[in-house]
Amino acid sequence: MMKIGYLGPKATFTDLAVTTVFPNHEKVPYNTIPECIDAVSSGEVELGVVPLENAIEGSVNLTIDYLVHEQTLPIVGEIVAPIQQHLMVHPNHSDDWDAIRCVYSHSHAIAQCHKFLHKHFKQAMYEYTTSTSAAAKFVSENPELKIAAIANRLAAQTYGLTIVQENIHDYDYNHTRFIIVQKENRELSIDSPLYAGDKTTLMITLPKDQAGALHQVLSAFAWRKLNLTKIESRPAKTGLGNYFFIIDIDQKMDDVLIPGAIAELEALGCSVQVLGSYPYYII
Amino acid sequence: MMKIGYLGPKATFTDLAVTTVFPNHEKVPYNTIPECIDAVSSGEVELGVVPLENAIEGSVNLTIDYLVHEQTLPIVGEIVAPIQQHLMVHPNHSDDWDAIRCVYSHSHAIAQCHKFLHKHFKQAMYEYTTSTSAAAKFVSENPELKIAAIANRLAAQTYGLTIVQENIHDYDYNHTRFIIVQKENRELSIDSPLYAGDKTTLMITLPKDQAGALHQVLSAFAWRKLNLTKIESRPAKTGLGNYFFIIDIDQKMDDVLIPGAIAELEALGCSVQVLGSYPYYII
Repeated sequence: MMKIGYLGPKATFTDLAVTTVFPNHEKVPYNTIPECIDAVSSGEVELGVVPLENAIEGSVNLTIDYLVHEQTLPIVGEIVAPIQQHLMVHPNHSDDWDAIRCVYSHSHAIAQCHKFLHKHFKQAMYEYTTSTSAAAKFVSENPELKIAAIANRLAAQTYGLTIVQENIHDYDYNHTRFIIVQKENRELSIDSPLYAGDKTTLMITLPKDQAGALHQVLSAFAWRKLNLTKIESRPAKTGLGNYFFIIDIDQKMDDVLIPGAIAELEALGCSVQVLGSYPYYII
Repeated sequence: MMKIGYLGPKATFTDLAVTTVFPNHEKVPYNTIPECIDAVSSGEVELGVVPLENAIEGSVNLTIDYLVHEQTLPIVGEIVAPIQQHLMVHPNHSDDWDAIRCVYSHSHAIAQCHKFLHKHFKQAMYEYTTSTSAAAKFVSENPELKIAAIANRLAAQTYGLTIVQENIHDYDYNHTRFIIVQKENRELSIDSPLYAGDKTTLMITLPKDQAGALHQVLSAFAWRKLNLTKIESRPAKTGLGNYFFIIDIDQKMDDVLIPGAIAELEALGCSVQVLGSYPYYII
């Protein structure tokens, strides 16, 4: 059994991802992304799971910035999870839930259910909480109030609430990516039926901000038929107008193609860092 | 005088950006990004200002997704603002602030000041609030408690707090981008000394997920010496593995180069949408 740190509190979307992929391990919640990454670095936990993009709780950029600038830990896995928001009430109100006066949730979750709420609860008030699970907790502790929470299935289970409307989020295609970091760069010893493939993530810094430099960089991948599934520019520490790129290649690190592309990029004056080559799991 | 909607509440980083660039207009706070964009669309306000990336309050992806999939409003301006976090206390405690027991703020702000807090307030507790300004408000209303807030300068002014430590954020290079949307695509009628240049933002959908397609797309810009300052892949509505790209070009829409690049991309089977061509302001 491993100790796995994650961005808490209990029953967040990160918790749901960890619980699904690592059902039989000890979970330790942390309040912020840096605290979770630090805990892996200090050996307090063996693995850390934090959101990488499109998160409800937790700022995307923080994860990459902290990994790149502060604690350089290898990425050893990725979890891709759908964002499914449900409307839940205290069991006392499961029959008269359409009379609720106020909806509690994280502001991002309320924004994600904008169309549903606009249609069904136009007159309701909203109260913003620091996480979706905090909203579920509040509803469970106040059975006398006519209120509902928007949160995930794990929050309903954890706090004993009844889901009265499933999947009220506006877009079905919404997914969150979580990365798994570890102190040493060795393969994850889990064998999950959710395994869906491998990818390699590179961080590339261009020699200077010049027209076409990125195009040149991508040539190194294109002629080798290496397929990129993600590309994102991020401001470098040096300030506005300077960028580095995060690139995902849809295969495991090999002996020829990826090392060849990296050598070619370095010859062009780029600096290249392999952030990880790892399996991903789709929930 | 214009009515300008922004992602609230009062004294958030979005409010600070709006107040700096549009000092003499009426400001209307909205609780979520979709509500703010809808208010522009319905004519309730003339302009809307929402975070686009790297935000403390407000999810980045939500803005682009809502603009692309729900309310297609043109981007007519951009504000680039540094993220400066300050430690502030009630004036009663300005002399004994190092004895504070608890720090209040949004979890993203606390994460951004991770190194400072770890060094100076290792024993302090943290309380998470739904925005940095909510933390400042709480501190102002509880002068008897030995607590501090992390928030911006406008929040200190708004709630009468004393800044006891300036710029406690870990990274100086951190900036937030806010976009200004308007119902009609006409030029902003403001004349600001913060004007720093123009850019054009395109959304490009590739014909299908194929190795090298992005490289081909960038060729259209590279040989015209059009400089890209941002590139980001975002999952398309159609699900995992399908992407569109958001690209920023560092010049205003012209009659020859950008239309030529767009025509070339369309000939390759891409679909291209101009999200805006607009001035940007650096605070």
